[in-house]
Amino acid sequence: MRDVTNGHHPDLGAALEHLLSSGGKRVRPAVALLSGAMLGAEVEKTISLAASIELLHTATLVHDDLIDGAFLRRGIPTLNAQWTPGATVLTGDFIFACAAKLAAKTDSVELMYLFAETLATIVNGEIIQMFQREDAGFYEAYLERIYAKTGSLFVLATTAPAILSPIRDTTYEASKRFGYGIGMAFQIIDDVLDFTGEQSSVGKPVANDLRQGLITLPTIYYREINPDDPNLDQILCGKNINNQELNQLVSEILESGAIEKATNKAQEFVDDALDALNELPPTPERQALENLSMYIIDRHL
Amino acid sequence: MRDVTNGHHPDLGAALEHLLSSGGKRVRPAVALLSGAMLGAEVEKTISLAASIELLHTATLVHDDLIDGAFLRRGIPTLNAQWTPGATVLTGDFIFACAAKLAAKTDSVELMYLFAETLATIVNGEIIQMFQREDAGFYEAYLERIYAKTGSLFVLATTAPAILSPIRDTTYEASKRFGYGIGMAFQIIDDVLDFTGEQSSVGKPVANDLRQGLITLPTIYYREINPDDPNLDQILCGKNINNQELNQLVSEILESGAIEKATNKAQEFVDDALDALNELPPTPERQALENLSMYIIDRHL
Repeated sequence: MRDVTNGHHPDLGAALEHLLSSGGKRVRPAVALLSGAMLGAEVEKTISLAASIELLHTATLVHDDLIDGAFLRRGIPTLNAQWTPGATVLTGDFIFACAAKLAAKTDSVELMYLFAETLATIVNGEIIQMFQREDAGFYEAYLERIYAKTGSLFVLATTAPAILSPIRDTTYEASKRFGYGIGMAFQIIDDVLDFTGEQSSVGKPVANDLRQGLITLPTIYYREINPDDPNLDQILCGKNINNQELNQLVSEILESGAIEKATNKAQEFVDDALDALNELPPTPERQALENLSMYIIDRHL
Repeated sequence: MRDVTNGHHPDLGAALEHLLSSGGKRVRPAVALLSGAMLGAEVEKTISLAASIELLHTATLVHDDLIDGAFLRRGIPTLNAQWTPGATVLTGDFIFACAAKLAAKTDSVELMYLFAETLATIVNGEIIQMFQREDAGFYEAYLERIYAKTGSLFVLATTAPAILSPIRDTTYEASKRFGYGIGMAFQIIDDVLDFTGEQSSVGKPVANDLRQGLITLPTIYYREINPDDPNLDQILCGKNINNQELNQLVSEILESGAIEKATNKAQEFVDDALDALNELPPTPERQALENLSMYIIDRHL
């Protein structure tokens, strides 16, 4: 990932270094590397693919943080907290270009097309989120949104290795189902942790999504039990509520059983992913992917 | 180009429609289509390539106009004049994704790689322009900048058809030299028109670049004759000068012969391009490319 800025302006290298040094779990490239090894894809190509996926993810985060005006991610300053908006937009664009170059190194046009389509899906999802708040309280709209936001890139991380694999025909569909299941679970757990996580480990205030007016699965389940909560109604109408009202709503969501129900839904997605994984070659990497799937549910940040 | 937004959020289609309806000369896709026909590349693939190049160009303009805070382009409102910065960033990203999808339809990984590298070159050039104003008065830095800004995409428009061509080996280098020459000339003439064009046809105030502190070829040549112009020194130091001083500087540049010298330099680039074009197959499309090369010098907007 670091090599891609060679030959370009040093500030771009510094920016990428800053972004990469902030850590992150690197779950997506880990899934791609393990999938590639499990399916017998060429190692060099799988490495390019994994780096490409992490950079695509990084580029979308750079633009997202700019758009949201977020100043911290993973506890360290975002690029837009330090640079002008213009430099931040361009750095995101540059990382997209680097990600595309790495994807081209896999030598597969089909994979490149999937790569471009995934970027279109991610951005389209953000546009929908920006313009169609009225749907935001519904389960189906939520699933579509988290597919665009997270599921699609996990699907890329499992289907692209299948495309590079010599046993592609018998592994593509199961790989896709596996990526879809863990990707959806990953985002649901992220949304649960937004309610239950410690501010210090999540790096954001508790129930940050709800504060921003973003309705996620715990809130959707809470609303099924409490359809007339006046504070929630206000948020769904796009109005602001004060901090005390918000804290009260968060407490009620936490006590309602909605968190457990959302966690169970994530577990269902992982169970389906593990079913699909069972159809793939029984290698040590498959065992690692199984462990990683369970970690997605049990993680605390 | 319009087809690429199918299946996505209607506002994205509306945004692309707005951008495409604003016209523009479509020189880059014209060059790609004529080059492809001249070199016997497959028609369908050449069309995807040409659309991909125009969309890549469009996406960079969307982000540039946002960064520059420009409210008009080609006499009609920019996207950022009507939308939020966030929606504008995402629309640019979406158009990048669409451009990459179209590029993948050419079925050539080598072309995809070149496509990604061209985007990296364009963005890197903008970053350099943003962070390294001190070099901006030098001829070599100017050439590097206009190569990144314009030359590189014209090179893509002529070399990508060669990659798709059955006679690639004997045509690639000449195609590259042709694209480079007309691309560089195109940008030099753009920079000349910024001084000589009517405000109504250029769509921006006269000498807009200089007003923004951007030094282009006419100013570089003027400075060779008048190394101590105090107004120009102020601009080169990053200071503002008042309108009267600026108008005086513009008059002096216009009367100094710098415009003619810059136009002659553009003609040299076109002459070299035409030399290279002469090595390519003598088809009706080659004649059209020759005419287009001369139009680049003679155009008035």
